[in-house]
Amino acid sequence: VPVFDEVVISLKKMNQVIDIDDLGGVMRCEAGCVLETLDERLKEHGLMMPIDLGAKGSCHIGGNVSTAAGGLRYMRYGSMHGNVLGLKAVLPSGEVLDVQNTLRKDNTGYDMKQLFIGAEGTLGIVTEVGLQLATLPKSVQTIFLGAPDWPALCNIFRRARSDLGEILSAAEMIDGEALDLILDIMKERSPVEKRCPYYMLIETNGSNAEADQAKLMEFLAAAEEAGIVADGTIAESGAQAKHIWSMREGCAIAPTSAGHVRWYDISMPSVNMKEMIDLAREAVSVAGFADKAKIIGFGHFGDGNLHINVVTIPEFDAAVVEAVDRFVYGFSRDRGYSVSAEHGIGLQKRGYLTYTKSEATVAHMRKIKDLFDPNGIMNPYKMFAP
Amino acid sequence: VPVFDEVVISLKKMNQVIDIDDLGGVMRCEAGCVLETLDERLKEHGLMMPIDLGAKGSCHIGGNVSTAAGGLRYMRYGSMHGNVLGLKAVLPSGEVLDVQNTLRKDNTGYDMKQLFIGAEGTLGIVTEVGLQLATLPKSVQTIFLGAPDWPALCNIFRRARSDLGEILSAAEMIDGEALDLILDIMKERSPVEKRCPYYMLIETNGSNAEADQAKLMEFLAAAEEAGIVADGTIAESGAQAKHIWSMREGCAIAPTSAGHVRWYDISMPSVNMKEMIDLAREAVSVAGFADKAKIIGFGHFGDGNLHINVVTIPEFDAAVVEAVDRFVYGFSRDRGYSVSAEHGIGLQKRGYLTYTKSEATVAHMRKIKDLFDPNGIMNPYKMFAP
Repeated sequence: VPVFDEVVISLKKMNQVIDIDDLGGVMRCEAGCVLETLDERLKEHGLMMPIDLGAKGSCHIGGNVSTAAGGLRYMRYGSMHGNVLGLKAVLPSGEVLDVQNTLRKDNTGYDMKQLFIGAEGTLGIVTEVGLQLATLPKSVQTIFLGAPDWPALCNIFRRARSDLGEILSAAEMIDGEALDLILDIMKERSPVEKRCPYYMLIETNGSNAEADQAKLMEFLAAAEEAGIVADGTIAESGAQAKHIWSMREGCAIAPTSAGHVRWYDISMPSVNMKEMIDLAREAVSVAGFADKAKIIGFGHFGDGNLHINVVTIPEFDAAVVEAVDRFVYGFSRDRGYSVSAEHGIGLQKRGYLTYTKSEATVAHMRKIKDLFDPNGIMNPYKMFAP
Repeated sequence: VPVFDEVVISLKKMNQVIDIDDLGGVMRCEAGCVLETLDERLKEHGLMMPIDLGAKGSCHIGGNVSTAAGGLRYMRYGSMHGNVLGLKAVLPSGEVLDVQNTLRKDNTGYDMKQLFIGAEGTLGIVTEVGLQLATLPKSVQTIFLGAPDWPALCNIFRRARSDLGEILSAAEMIDGEALDLILDIMKERSPVEKRCPYYMLIETNGSNAEADQAKLMEFLAAAEEAGIVADGTIAESGAQAKHIWSMREGCAIAPTSAGHVRWYDISMPSVNMKEMIDLAREAVSVAGFADKAKIIGFGHFGDGNLHINVVTIPEFDAAVVEAVDRFVYGFSRDRGYSVSAEHGIGLQKRGYLTYTKSEATVAHMRKIKDLFDPNGIMNPYKMFAP
């Protein structure tokens, strides 16, 4: 995103798939390919992209690499650092760094491609990507559970990881107050009847629907017997699964229609997410903003990634943003959390980089920046002050 | 391994586990922890290490990180680049680069830890590691199959990936001539009765033994009906599973008792492994070494990682090594394969680094080396000539 005097370069015409090896499960493509288009293309090979995002219809794979995008399949299929096999990047000197390949393993020298994954374009422009792909699951199951309290929610996840193990592909958490608020904004009904303090959306990806359903039923029966589930539903149709997912997606999208939204994206131990949400609400209240700001707490429980969306109703209020920033980032720094799990640093969080990384580490990052981009022309202003 | 005038630093007293978070499935430990000891320790938490190697009883986790070790669980649990969450490294200046953490996601600035993964100690000494762990499987199944020909072997893998999907944890290939040779050296019987041109060892890791066995039976029945399996056996006891694995481990270990062994570790498309083994045998024969050198072709089929062990009987013969080096590395360069999949560059392959990476890329690696280690004191002679 240009903010001052930058030149914007679009790669959208570099949208060709170079090759797909369906035995190896690998692909090479140009950076301007749209994520969803790639996913569609891979279906006929029985494969799928290892990442999935809300923005899949418009985001480019080159951007996914440059931001080290996480998304909804992260828990199961892992990070871009693990899935990108190679890339080409044009350096600010005009030189092309070509470490493109589709080899799953290549231990020859430093893994230079890693520097470009998540560099937000500040070292060069990624123009081609080699990717490890995932097998297209034959069975996808979606369930939505309400937990009677926070420890129960943690135990639902613990049991899901143990009982569903290899088919568990998502475990998303929504806070009860957050669901009330977004249901109100969306004019929708909750997937479960009982109002609970915390909810979890669980998705499985497997190769055999019958076996997966049997596992899910066993898991649910055991969870109910253990008293950790207060209410729950299994999607019995695509439409029902979509409705369940709309709750999770609504957390991110719906609030924008109600007021001004400030997004937070914290990496932290999942067990402490409740504490963070509670304290954020308290901070807003203590600062006297209880009437004009609402907090939506949700996130990728299985990945230790909490999102907090603060909705200022009806419009932007700098004082609210300042109060919440101070609390959320300060608390993250004090606890050793990261101020950005999957959304990078950019301009907004530039001043908070040292909240997560030591001054010494940031100094080394700057040396890397100077090595590749001595004139500071690549995505200037972002990540570090020029 | 010291070769000239190096000082060797042992980290074996830095062997403490710092903490284990069993809800998050993450751990921090010192670099001198032995891999197998960590794995044992994690069992009580229902967790396991994401890597497994033949050398697990003696190798240190710091070394696993510094060499970006691959191993037997790679296909399922992925690379160190994906599983290492943080680390501490002592730089040659004496400064400590502290990017230790246990956060699964952290997109704040360049991912500095990645440079130290696979750097073979040439940038600094890794002293602490934060790791993402795997869930301990409740069911482990092992089968050994013989294929009537190479395309059938490829189809066994294709079908296994599709039918066993999420439980598939290893797909190891052994060439028929290789198995004959190691059975002869080991004085052992093959797990299957029929002598086949290619064999595949398949292992599954799952959460439910009954469901896994049902999936395996279905897979086997379908593979037999498709005519891609000539003979096969499912391990019905731990002892039988161990016997099957001893075939695969024997490929690496047994030849050392028969003569001098030269190891190769090539990253390449699995579909072309047969061609590489055939041509290597031909190269040995054409060079007139058919009587004194035998080739054992095997490897991680699921990861595109071929091992070739050349056994010179009864002792080292420089001419044989030279002939095979020339062929294997030359062929790898011409085809765009990598001359090292999981064993790094070290001293032996230093001259072959540019077979895999362009001169321009190696020049950038040297700049990184100079940035961290301007005096060239860290693991000198290795990777690059001083």
